Amino acid sequence: MTTIKTTLKELGEQGLIRLLQPYCSDVVGDDAAIMGMTTGDRQMVVTTDMLVDGVHFSDRTTSAEDVGWRAAAVNLSDLAAMGAQPWGLVIAVGLPADTTVAWIEGVYRGFWECLKTYGGELVGGDTVRSPIRTLSVTAFGQVANSQIIRRDRARVGDAIVITGVHGYAKAGLELLLNPVLASNLEPVLSQEAIRRHQRPIPRFDAIATLQMITQELAAPLIAGMDSSDGLGDAIAQICRASGVGAKIDWEALPIPIVVQKLAGERARDWVLYGGEDFELVLFMPLEIAHKFVAALPTAMIIGQAIAPNPENPEISMGSAFQHF
Amino acid sequence: MTTIKTTLKELGEQGLIRLLQPYCSDVVGDDAAIMGMTTGDRQMVVTTDMLVDGVHFSDRTTSAEDVGWRAAAVNLSDLAAMGAQPWGLVIAVGLPADTTVAWIEGVYRGFWECLKTYGGELVGGDTVRSPIRTLSVTAFGQVANSQIIRRDRARVGDAIVITGVHGYAKAGLELLLNPVLASNLEPVLSQEAIRRHQRPIPRFDAIATLQMITQELAAPLIAGMDSSDGLGDAIAQICRASGVGAKIDWEALPIPIVVQKLAGERARDWVLYGGEDFELVLFMPLEIAHKFVAALPTAMIIGQAIAPNPENPEISMGSAFQHF
Repeated sequence: MTTIKTTLKELGEQGLIRLLQPYCSDVVGDDAAIMGMTTGDRQMVVTTDMLVDGVHFSDRTTSAEDVGWRAAAVNLSDLAAMGAQPWGLVIAVGLPADTTVAWIEGVYRGFWECLKTYGGELVGGDTVRSPIRTLSVTAFGQVANSQIIRRDRARVGDAIVITGVHGYAKAGLELLLNPVLASNLEPVLSQEAIRRHQRPIPRFDAIATLQMITQELAAPLIAGMDSSDGLGDAIAQICRASGVGAKIDWEALPIPIVVQKLAGERARDWVLYGGEDFELVLFMPLEIAHKFVAALPTAMIIGQAIAPNPENPEISMGSAFQHF
Repeated sequence: MTTIKTTLKELGEQGLIRLLQPYCSDVVGDDAAIMGMTTGDRQMVVTTDMLVDGVHFSDRTTSAEDVGWRAAAVNLSDLAAMGAQPWGLVIAVGLPADTTVAWIEGVYRGFWECLKTYGGELVGGDTVRSPIRTLSVTAFGQVANSQIIRRDRARVGDAIVITGVHGYAKAGLELLLNPVLASNLEPVLSQEAIRRHQRPIPRFDAIATLQMITQELAAPLIAGMDSSDGLGDAIAQICRASGVGAKIDWEALPIPIVVQKLAGERARDWVLYGGEDFELVLFMPLEIAHKFVAALPTAMIIGQAIAPNPENPEISMGSAFQHF
């Protein structure tokens, strides 16, 4: 592969991940990695995310405070997706010399606000010179062995549960890029979409609810990850890791009115592929799912795990639900 | 300050660190941070470093393998500087789409080689698009409570010990930037300087030696950090954190022949301020120091901690030894 595909553009992201896999220990594959370091019956997990100016944020759509909030929230969401509680975070920042002090202080303020709200403490960092503003955050958390959520634990028959509505973040981004789009919308609708884009919320409330419901189970039964790369991607990845297919109940999958208005015919695509909603996508036994959605008002059952298509397992697992 | 100094260039690195300090927990200040997470009598420590193309490495002086090695080594050296053993590392990489597959694979190979040699496992990562090649590594380690090395533990009368000769890394960099300089040198001398620049070695051997000598002590007595930012900077930082001054025995401070040849009159400056030698700079009771240098052939005593200058503590602590 390396002799033919000479640049990353040709290789693609999945190709790159396959290429680098041999250098990593075999725990890689979930939102966060289990470090093999235990305190009592708790596992330590770790996750890292890099945000780059012009790729993951821009002055056009994201204030300094929102950049900092986002840098914290995306990492905390990865911890939540493992069922873990946040502990400490470190942040490395690359900055051009002409960066304003107001900007970097705003970033730290937003970062700190998110930690104050959702937990975790900033324990260290590094600041270096760089031609492009870059933030790299690593977050650690802890989770009881019996409550670890992984991608590879879904079983045929499981209910597919989301902790909230998808599509808002994409709608918010479009509204920030093209403010004129808001002219046909109630202000309260566009504001909510923008807020959800700018201030993603790590769903530790959903994890706490789930753990109350499952605390008497001896072994973990929940598969899941967050929907940062899109609801469709999350379902496909869990299906692939677990060797199951997925059947989506399209009538149960809500499309927010703001998405209907902005996306028109492409509304369902925004819900499935818009990304950055940072909800949790969970596969769990139906009985637990009913208790969960009863206890967490924003959550809903949107489908079921089914046997993979024996004639074409690659399609029914890899591309999951697209074929139902 | 924020109203007057509007850019980071005007604020300076120390100003930036002071600005951001309020957002961090109070454990920040050593090479690595103590996370407040214990397993038995061991503390967990964490460190993070970002490397940027054109700032910390370049194709002119650094192969892909060397970039990867360095990314691992600088973080492992921070763990060694705390007295800690490496556990796991995560790496976030930002890459332009035209990055060659050979380059990124070389980086991971070099990273892996360093871990294989000095310990630690790659447990996770993130790869994102970026206009500039950027690596951000976070490393975790563990250290027994009684063996933590911090900057603020030096006491008047302590011996100042270095684990090896300084100046090679600067000489190696100059030779890579100006290969013609090598024409007056024995090839073996220039090769050794270049090797030390390209493949810094985290001094876990020095830590193991020190811990064998100090294992029966009840409380940690050793102050220290690594010399990544220069020997002079390390001595000044330890003095400042501990409230002591430093008296250097210039005759005991070796200047490698390659530095003498290349730097001429500036040879001592290269030794003190060249940076990137990644040795450890340790302050310890004289009796321990004698045992340590007897057991570790590369180590030497180069001075002594003295009372700060009462007439000008800021100078004698902050700028340390420059006044002796």
